[in-house]
Amino acid sequence: MTLKVGVIGTGMIGRDHIRRLTKVVSGAEVVAVADADEVAAKEVAAGLANAKVHARGEDLIADADVDAVIVCSWGPTHEQYVVAAVAAGKPVFCEKPLATTTDACRRIMDAEVAHGRRRVQVGFMRRYDAPYRALKHAIDSGAVGAPLIYYSGHRNASVPDHYTKDMAIVDTAVHDFDVTRWLLGEELSAIRVLAAKPNSHGGALQDPLLMILETESGVLVNVETSVNIRYGYDIRGEVVGEDGTAALADTGQVVLRRANGVGVGVPEDWRERFIAAYDVEFQEWINEVVAGTGLTGPSSWDGYAAQVVCDAGVKALYSGDRIEIDLGAKPALYS
Amino acid sequence: MTLKVGVIGTGMIGRDHIRRLTKVVSGAEVVAVADADEVAAKEVAAGLANAKVHARGEDLIADADVDAVIVCSWGPTHEQYVVAAVAAGKPVFCEKPLATTTDACRRIMDAEVAHGRRRVQVGFMRRYDAPYRALKHAIDSGAVGAPLIYYSGHRNASVPDHYTKDMAIVDTAVHDFDVTRWLLGEELSAIRVLAAKPNSHGGALQDPLLMILETESGVLVNVETSVNIRYGYDIRGEVVGEDGTAALADTGQVVLRRANGVGVGVPEDWRERFIAAYDVEFQEWINEVVAGTGLTGPSSWDGYAAQVVCDAGVKALYSGDRIEIDLGAKPALYS
Amino acid sequence: MTLKVGVIGTGMIGRDHIRRLTKVVSGAEVVAVADADEVAAKEVAAGLANAKVHARGEDLIADADVDAVIVCSWGPTHEQYVVAAVAAGKPVFCEKPLATTTDACRRIMDAEVAHGRRRVQVGFMRRYDAPYRALKHAIDSGAVGAPLIYYSGHRNASVPDHYTKDMAIVDTAVHDFDVTRWLLGEELSAIRVLAAKPNSHGGALQDPLLMILETESGVLVNVETSVNIRYGYDIRGEVVGEDGTAALADTGQVVLRRANGVGVGVPEDWRERFIAAYDVEFQEWINEVVAGTGLTGPSSWDGYAAQVVCDAGVKALYSGDRIEIDLGAKPALYS
Amino acid sequence: MTLKVGVIGTGMIGRDHIRRLTKVVSGAEVVAVADADEVAAKEVAAGLANAKVHARGEDLIADADVDAVIVCSWGPTHEQYVVAAVAAGKPVFCEKPLATTTDACRRIMDAEVAHGRRRVQVGFMRRYDAPYRALKHAIDSGAVGAPLIYYSGHRNASVPDHYTKDMAIVDTAVHDFDVTRWLLGEELSAIRVLAAKPNSHGGALQDPLLMILETESGVLVNVETSVNIRYGYDIRGEVVGEDGTAALADTGQVVLRRANGVGVGVPEDWRERFIAAYDVEFQEWINEVVAGTGLTGPSSWDGYAAQVVCDAGVKALYSGDRIEIDLGAKPALYS
Repeated sequence: MTLKVGVIGTGMIGRDHIRRLTKVVSGAEVVAVADADEVAAKEVAAGLANAKVHARGEDLIADADVDAVIVCSWGPTHEQYVVAAVAAGKPVFCEKPLATTTDACRRIMDAEVAHGRRRVQVGFMRRYDAPYRALKHAIDSGAVGAPLIYYSGHRNASVPDHYTKDMAIVDTAVHDFDVTRWLLGEELSAIRVLAAKPNSHGGALQDPLLMILETESGVLVNVETSVNIRYGYDIRGEVVGEDGTAALADTGQVVLRRANGVGVGVPEDWRERFIAAYDVEFQEWINEVVAGTGLTGPSSWDGYAAQVVCDAGVKALYSGDRIEIDLGAKPALYS
Repeated sequence: MTLKVGVIGTGMIGRDHIRRLTKVVSGAEVVAVADADEVAAKEVAAGLANAKVHARGEDLIADADVDAVIVCSWGPTHEQYVVAAVAAGKPVFCEKPLATTTDACRRIMDAEVAHGRRRVQVGFMRRYDAPYRALKHAIDSGAVGAPLIYYSGHRNASVPDHYTKDMAIVDTAVHDFDVTRWLLGEELSAIRVLAAKPNSHGGALQDPLLMILETESGVLVNVETSVNIRYGYDIRGEVVGEDGTAALADTGQVVLRRANGVGVGVPEDWRERFIAAYDVEFQEWINEVVAGTGLTGPSSWDGYAAQVVCDAGVKALYSGDRIEIDLGAKPALYS
Repeated sequence: MTLKVGVIGTGMIGRDHIRRLTKVVSGAEVVAVADADEVAAKEVAAGLANAKVHARGEDLIADADVDAVIVCSWGPTHEQYVVAAVAAGKPVFCEKPLATTTDACRRIMDAEVAHGRRRVQVGFMRRYDAPYRALKHAIDSGAVGAPLIYYSGHRNASVPDHYTKDMAIVDTAVHDFDVTRWLLGEELSAIRVLAAKPNSHGGALQDPLLMILETESGVLVNVETSVNIRYGYDIRGEVVGEDGTAALADTGQVVLRRANGVGVGVPEDWRERFIAAYDVEFQEWINEVVAGTGLTGPSSWDGYAAQVVCDAGVKALYSGDRIEIDLGAKPALYS
Repeated sequence: MTLKVGVIGTGMIGRDHIRRLTKVVSGAEVVAVADADEVAAKEVAAGLANAKVHARGEDLIADADVDAVIVCSWGPTHEQYVVAAVAAGKPVFCEKPLATTTDACRRIMDAEVAHGRRRVQVGFMRRYDAPYRALKHAIDSGAVGAPLIYYSGHRNASVPDHYTKDMAIVDTAVHDFDVTRWLLGEELSAIRVLAAKPNSHGGALQDPLLMILETESGVLVNVETSVNIRYGYDIRGEVVGEDGTAALADTGQVVLRRANGVGVGVPEDWRERFIAAYDVEFQEWINEVVAGTGLTGPSSWDGYAAQVVCDAGVKALYSGDRIEIDLGAKPALYS
């Protein structure tokens, strides 16, 4: 059975997901697209075997030929499309962020809870990355004992000019927050944000930042964002456990010995580092939707929790204080 | 456009490829199967959406609904099916070996040359492995200068009881031979086989072996087969160039610090090590067949060359001599 | 010229230094010993070619045959011997700590400043460790740009029963404090101490700890003490700079491939890790004393600064607050 | 007790050893020097506290103040000085080679056997290198099971113009031969030498070479010499055992992440790589001589065996044949 998918948002990320669904993963077909820019949507549809163009996302969701929906539109529109898909009882994959405010995230959860079944998956692709999965396996198998500290390093060679102070938290560290929650299997309960001596490559930006988070059980989490570090895109993670530590290995596949040195390469950017994770993410989503056995990927609750942690992080960044994170009660649907 | 594939041979490897075509890669559909054991074939077909069962491989090849053929049957039957597919003008993917004798390989090439177009691809999956591709990229980009020596290490934790002396060459080192030809972009011209002090885990087997090969341009190639080495399945490769060396990195994705040591895991077996390579191999074959722009994977010539090197290797093993490898003229179709 | 050395304190560490001076390094001779336990002192002297035994440390210092003094006695006695040696104008090497209170450290500095010349060296041996020196060289050579963050990890397999809460700071992290000051070439200005979820191997101990320090220029320093981590004695350090990072490499000298893993060993304890550093420390001290060109090793100021940071650290540990570190003015003698 | 040493040969290597004895290691004093160039000898003596100059090496050996002799003169003179020292019953440390012909080596052994006690040590410093010792420890402790294959890689960035074809064997691979005998604890019994495609940086030189040796028990030894490989001085070694492998780790002490890569440095030359080994070599020799408990370092037999293997290697290089190595009977003194 082929899953008939409709894609809302045909910008860069939407086109990449359409390519993925069409040429890389198995079991899905893109049958409809919609975009605020109808010309762009028509252009994309023209390149597909058999895809309709809808004027509005809501029309695409209502289309009886559409089994499942992917939302890659502008962030502020996510809520309306996700809620509509849930109301229509259709599985919906929503790119990050789930919504742009915690209230919007809560409304999505409320809709899903009212609907009674998980329909929403959020695009936290790191959970589908093979090295991160191996790290989680090491933790869960008890290879290093119970986790006590987790170091999460997020380094970019550079960031575009429009990158603002807050983005180190809401665009960059948000991935570290989600992957930490997933790796450790528990919620974050407090955050401090400390600014290091600024990197001169970053102009007026406060970069790097060191964030110290606490989990409910007392694990300390150290998130470093260094977004102007020149040498590459380097994602690091080390869990310090009771008996040892487990860390993401370097990803270079060839050891070069030359020019008085021996070593491996570091990725240039996130595309190089995570391209395979996106493929796995969609393949598993398709498989689960087709099987109808329930979704196991990042849920509305995960999207909501990331948002709450980001809000606390921004508050901590400006105040210099330790900010407590209060998620409120977790609906039974998500346990 | 979906490629309609017929699979001849529904044993372990055939079933695994059917799973791959159905659930992992994009753009293909299994529409027919055949096996000497018709019960097995029917069982497999029953698990597919829409697949016919043919009594004979030849019938499957002749079926107008079949666009392309995959041959996973018993080695001695490869020749007849591959030649039939070529005669029918259908692309055919043949698992290793292409055929069991160099004469049979030559007859396949003759048929393909007579047909006038490349139709055959042989299942040397290492060429689709990401680390090997990164190694080839390093060589081709000149990162370490012109290659002068290549070390190829092929280590298995253990081998089954039916593993014989010759199999170290025809079943094990054959992969090293093919990947060496591909990495270096030239033919092998001579081989010596030396038996080291035998590993006591191998019983009466001559294991490990050290094979010294020469390429046409004078590169020395050192192939080690250690098939009872207990510690894991470890595929190693290092090119020594004029300015430096490039080697396959270890593939472990998590660095563990525990019990007075720090390190990464080594695969248990070839499935773990090469599973992703098979996926890429089939995806690229499907893409090329559908695009109709010509095949770039391992050809009949590559299957033939591997067979000739194996024959020379076995001769070298028994004689203790340096055996020259003579491939004869390469048909223009393969250049 | 052979340097004639007197050693005050002939316990475990004193005997080890006497062995080092006698059998490992070049240019020194132990000519006198003193210990509160005169029997022990006589025993040690009996094993030496030509060594007197003095009843009191002060007598040893006054002995005209003694060119230089090494103090390895009980911590609370350090001040009196160091001050006496300075008064006598003799070079004195004092094991950690320089003294047990900042007031005592200040009195030593006052004495040395009054004397007008550096006579005191403190036993912070990490500054003589080859990996740390290579790290400092990398920083100073600009290999990774200006330092912005420094991670210092101090992991012990286990600690003895008498190890107390404060010792994580005054006995363990004190090394990280000193080496940080030396690597970065600047003073520490504030400290926070956070307790992670406790390691169950540590009983009631607060372990691990994460300490966040700030330097005068704004570098953030992250010190982790994990003193019950079972897997070995592992000293880690990574400087995050403007253009890249530099980290202490693992020290294992043999890569083992066995039992499904590949990796190197981790030291069992500090002796194994730092034994060579002690040798270099004494050789350079002897060379500098003999050359008479002035001491470059850790000074009274360094001993004092470490003490002040420890005091602040203990205060931070108990209060949970960020504690500022105030060293006061640095005497010109130490710049 | 200080060992009074006389040094014959005050060229570059002699001066370096005199520096080592005077300023680095413990327990020795240089009391006499001799050199064919008496001006040079006087110059060196002038820099020492208390050293005589002898016109001839034989006079130095006869000097009653000289306890032990170090021979660093021109190779062809080694025999006469070593034999004279043995005749005088004085311990003699002789730099490589022990002598320039196997006959000369045999005459030295004859003299020593007639004398009845080991007096001679040959300067194969790799046996004192910490990584090699760790490798030997791994082998001897059974960490990887019985050795079956040994890979020894000897890579130089470049060689001087006067480097000839034979020198790859007698100057370069000779170290690999000795260290192989020592690591495996057995003799080499045959050698083949194969020339790879020549490195264009090496002009007309046959470089790299691959040498395949056999030990008495059947271990295969693969020695690679690549002496124009530009990237650095890189000494590699990997023992393939029955259960796993053990290899020399890279020696870089700082992991740098910069410019899209992560890795450690490779030494520039042999001085950087082996400087510490020379120190240990002399310290242990001094300690053993002073203790009078017998020498355990490389013996005359080791010097002789290396010479015989080199002779066979040169023969193999020119003939292309497998050459058997025949050491003859080993005198009981050396077992």
